[in-house]
Amino acid sequence: MNSLKELLVDELKDLYNAETQLVKALPDMADCASNPDLKAGIAAHLEQTRGHVDRLEQCFRILGEKANGKTCHAMKGLVEEAQEALDQNGSDAVRDAQLIGAAQRVEHYEIAAYGTARAFAETLGEDEVAQLLQETLDEEGAANKQLTAIALTVNQEAGAATGDEMERE
Amino acid sequence: MNSLKELLVDELKDLYNAETQLVKALPDMADCASNPDLKAGIAAHLEQTRGHVDRLEQCFRILGEKANGKTCHAMKGLVEEAQEALDQNGSDAVRDAQLIGAAQRVEHYEIAAYGTARAFAETLGEDEVAQLLQETLDEEGAANKQLTAIALTVNQEAGAATGDEMERE
Repeated sequence: MNSLKELLVDELKDLYNAETQLVKALPDMADCASNPDLKAGIAAHLEQTRGHVDRLEQCFRILGEKANGKTCHAMKGLVEEAQEALDQNGSDAVRDAQLIGAAQRVEHYEIAAYGTARAFAETLGEDEVAQLLQETLDEEGAANKQLTAIALTVNQEAGAATGDEMERE
Repeated sequence: MNSLKELLVDELKDLYNAETQLVKALPDMADCASNPDLKAGIAAHLEQTRGHVDRLEQCFRILGEKANGKTCHAMKGLVEEAQEALDQNGSDAVRDAQLIGAAQRVEHYEIAAYGTARAFAETLGEDEVAQLLQETLDEEGAANKQLTAIALTVNQEAGAATGDEMERE
């Protein structure tokens, strides 16, 4: 890796693979969610995520590079953690709370990665690429805030779930 | 997973393992950094990270649980990504830029995970645990901001590195 341009392309490949993994993982997460706002929020984010893949393809085109990915190990781990939530048989609200935790880790990963890539693009004077990455960054930030708002209700429900009630008795 | 308390303990185990992985990974990252501010920042964060492990042990004690971890797959992937930066033979500044990108992903993972755990603790009325988690959360946030500030210089140096110069010729 000898230039910032190479590093930018490498970051975009990581993100391209990460977003592609997410497009596959989000439908199961939406199916598994019980809270209607959470279910609708994840489904809406799936549509947005498809748009993020398109924007990354535009970035590759602008930079004269082939759109392809390289395995994003972190997203593999994040998706595994989300899968753990899907596999829980307990209370719906507790599973939703765990699902939100997994989804917010995913959002934060993307916020960090897009922020880094946008900073590289800005430094290189690749303004159109920086703008596209900023648009996705704004959507990831908004999705994260929405999850925080949904968590306020879900955590209360989870705190009132059977297990905690039993402990208090 | 039937109660929010169980889920909180599960989140703390994930974080305990994640922080322990970091304590092992950060010395190599500090060794490999070229920019003196980055090197010093990572070394200082290693000390903070040891403190985060201590705070998690306090949380386990307060909750009457054994302090142990469960493999945090996401942090494994994040550490692998940092390792990729360490293995680069190219320009120092470009490697530093990649290292900052990996470190900021780690910080964002932790910000999401500690934020989730603190919200669970608050909902459960575990105020002392919530306070300990907030203290770490504040330090992770400050570490992330410091990395953003260092990146301003490092990215400029990386943009002026040989590869980019050659491309412009």
